[in-house]
Amino acid sequence: MDRRFTIEELREERPWLRRKTLVFMSDFGLVDGAVSAMHGVADEVSQDLRLEDLTHDIPQFSIWEASYRLIQAMTYWAPGTVFISVVDPGVGSDRKSVAVLTASGHVVVTPDNGTLTHVAKDIGILERREIFEAVNRLSGSQRSYTFHGRDVYAYTGARIASGAISFEETGPVLDDAPVLLDVEEPRIEGDRLIGAIDILDTRYGSLWTNIPDTLFDQFGARHGERFHIEIRHDDMTVFGYDMPFCRNFTEVGKGEPLIYINSLLNVGIAINQGSFSERFRIGTGEGWRIAISASR
Amino acid sequence: MDRRFTIEELREERPWLRRKTLVFMSDFGLVDGAVSAMHGVADEVSQDLRLEDLTHDIPQFSIWEASYRLIQAMTYWAPGTVFISVVDPGVGSDRKSVAVLTASGHVVVTPDNGTLTHVAKDIGILERREIFEAVNRLSGSQRSYTFHGRDVYAYTGARIASGAISFEETGPVLDDAPVLLDVEEPRIEGDRLIGAIDILDTRYGSLWTNIPDTLFDQFGARHGERFHIEIRHDDMTVFGYDMPFCRNFTEVGKGEPLIYINSLLNVGIAINQGSFSERFRIGTGEGWRIAISASR
Amino acid sequence: MDRRFTIEELREERPWLRRKTLVFMSDFGLVDGAVSAMHGVADEVSQDLRLEDLTHDIPQFSIWEASYRLIQAMTYWAPGTVFISVVDPGVGSDRKSVAVLTASGHVVVTPDNGTLTHVAKDIGILERREIFEAVNRLSGSQRSYTFHGRDVYAYTGARIASGAISFEETGPVLDDAPVLLDVEEPRIEGDRLIGAIDILDTRYGSLWTNIPDTLFDQFGARHGERFHIEIRHDDMTVFGYDMPFCRNFTEVGKGEPLIYINSLLNVGIAINQGSFSERFRIGTGEGWRIAISASR
Repeated sequence: MDRRFTIEELREERPWLRRKTLVFMSDFGLVDGAVSAMHGVADEVSQDLRLEDLTHDIPQFSIWEASYRLIQAMTYWAPGTVFISVVDPGVGSDRKSVAVLTASGHVVVTPDNGTLTHVAKDIGILERREIFEAVNRLSGSQRSYTFHGRDVYAYTGARIASGAISFEETGPVLDDAPVLLDVEEPRIEGDRLIGAIDILDTRYGSLWTNIPDTLFDQFGARHGERFHIEIRHDDMTVFGYDMPFCRNFTEVGKGEPLIYINSLLNVGIAINQGSFSERFRIGTGEGWRIAISASR
Repeated sequence: MDRRFTIEELREERPWLRRKTLVFMSDFGLVDGAVSAMHGVADEVSQDLRLEDLTHDIPQFSIWEASYRLIQAMTYWAPGTVFISVVDPGVGSDRKSVAVLTASGHVVVTPDNGTLTHVAKDIGILERREIFEAVNRLSGSQRSYTFHGRDVYAYTGARIASGAISFEETGPVLDDAPVLLDVEEPRIEGDRLIGAIDILDTRYGSLWTNIPDTLFDQFGARHGERFHIEIRHDDMTVFGYDMPFCRNFTEVGKGEPLIYINSLLNVGIAINQGSFSERFRIGTGEGWRIAISASR
Repeated sequence: MDRRFTIEELREERPWLRRKTLVFMSDFGLVDGAVSAMHGVADEVSQDLRLEDLTHDIPQFSIWEASYRLIQAMTYWAPGTVFISVVDPGVGSDRKSVAVLTASGHVVVTPDNGTLTHVAKDIGILERREIFEAVNRLSGSQRSYTFHGRDVYAYTGARIASGAISFEETGPVLDDAPVLLDVEEPRIEGDRLIGAIDILDTRYGSLWTNIPDTLFDQFGARHGERFHIEIRHDDMTVFGYDMPFCRNFTEVGKGEPLIYINSLLNVGIAINQGSFSERFRIGTGEGWRIAISASR
């Protein structure tokens, strides 16, 4: 769980040669045969691979959510596991295809479009290589140009996981930084506690921020106190209201908002028996910012 | 299919040492990475396991439906297969975590919260052991207290299936009965035939009762005859109406209710080209009771 | 990728003896345990099989969509892979159960109800054998007569894939043609270009026709020009309107229809930021026909 390695340790150990596990993620859904086609390509590369799925229900083109889901599950898979992420609104454009080695010893094959944001920030990227699509591509797929998930990523990820090519053989090292989404770092600024809205709790519509309970505590939070919550999207304030910091949802009436600490030990915002995100039309990811201050 | 063993046979054979298959069920859905994290934990315990899913679309916190789905699929898996069920509204409370050995030779790892009701009644439980969470837990997960599916159940189930621990090593035998939901046993009582509403046919909204066709026959049912159907929820009558016992849905007009025999050879209640459960807001499980009597 | 074999090559090579992969498709959904029960039956036949899913979200009883989805994914799986398709509205009737060997070296086990239409037309069927259900059936399942997917198809497919029986042992060769759905072949007829509506793009509700871009080009299509689109269902015209042939959706206003070339390089019909199929209640498959002619 959550081990950290150096690049030298990983070069020597090459854990993916022992692991032979490929985990797919995409925004394709499971209704048509797209995910199955990716699995088929990987199976043809090697029958010895374990083929798994993280989720294929990433909202279409939501790079932010792909980035977030990766770190939610990645560290529960053994070092050496290879992840393939295909949320790729820029397919056909000049966005790069990359393979990265993380400090946790995992490999991620993905378009370099921001999907690596949370991995870079929370786990660390030791090396990033550009995949040349002309050579790392399913034979016979040259005429197809809109399904890199199958033709390039599944094929290349399976070849890394099976040992057909080494991580180093995917392509040359990139020295610049990966494309990163703009994340509002959680911080105290004057009399305000600021952070990002990472994700919605998909079942309830509660907001999960990236503000840890320890920072909220440092900010002076005490159960039962009220705080002013302001939510901005880009430069527009879209929500402003006072609400209490509760241990349980039932401390407020039905339909009333509250602040709580979620299962990741971060600050969450919810409505008792309702959906905060639907009621106030709050989204997540880039451009969404929350600020907590004293009750007004 | 549907073999029955004694505890001595299972102790001697230890079929799970040969089977190495783990089947997961939960109410998590497949949208986030929770199920994948459970698979990852199991894969790290052993690469030799087959990792499968029964369903992850159990309605949230529906212990009844989890209990019912288990027996629907369990006996089609070879003896020795280990099932992990995570419908766990009481996580963090004092509900026990248990591993049970069934008369069909399967192992179920689950919170002891009623999930074992149908297994106990229809298949039989030979032995039930308490899993001590302090020792049967993913290393490094001690600070996490809300995701026992990943930290305790996936980890322990994988260790049983892979032979890392024996079934007996999961913990001490429990001598009391497992927590059981209240099931209305199908029976004739005076001039009424009484039973429970086990489940909805999810595609059509028909009701599937636990009354076998043989008992309905014994009650005097003949195709074409009309019967009075009364449905109660707890102590309240929520539906009362006469309808015919049909071979085919088309024997009644569109939108009209009927009694039929479903694919499990139990009594079902449906609307021709409509959803009975939606139209009359009928639920399933504990507290839902059906009574059939002569037409009024 | 898309190799083609003769029956002699396949008889000699018997690729399925090396492949041991089973891919399931059905209209069962993943909410109950039906798919898991099929996997369990296959696992009991042999622990050495890879068990995969194409999709289980085929719209209920949509033989056309099953037929279409098969060819979408099939050729991305290695020769020798065995597919099991269970979209079976005629279960219990006298429709045959068959196993076919395709020119791509795959085996399909399916009810012979039209599911093989696109495989026969686009890939080619080398041999088709009738599966006698009385012998090719899970032992103990004789009383069950509505779940052939589990009792006959999963069981027989797993026995072929594992080598327990040869393809030839499934049953006698059938010399007649398989049941084929009526497909409107794409063609120029006088001043009209005619074709079928193969499928909906499930995320957007766009129509995907079976008219290749090359045929549309031959018909004289140029970007920016307007054409008259007529859609018929059986003998009834249900849509008639002029719209432009665009490179991008944004060339028309929001809510306006357009003609475009989809990712399979076929003609598609869409609404910019809307669902064409929902707005005009257009379906797909047998009986649905599109005709393109000069703008009126």
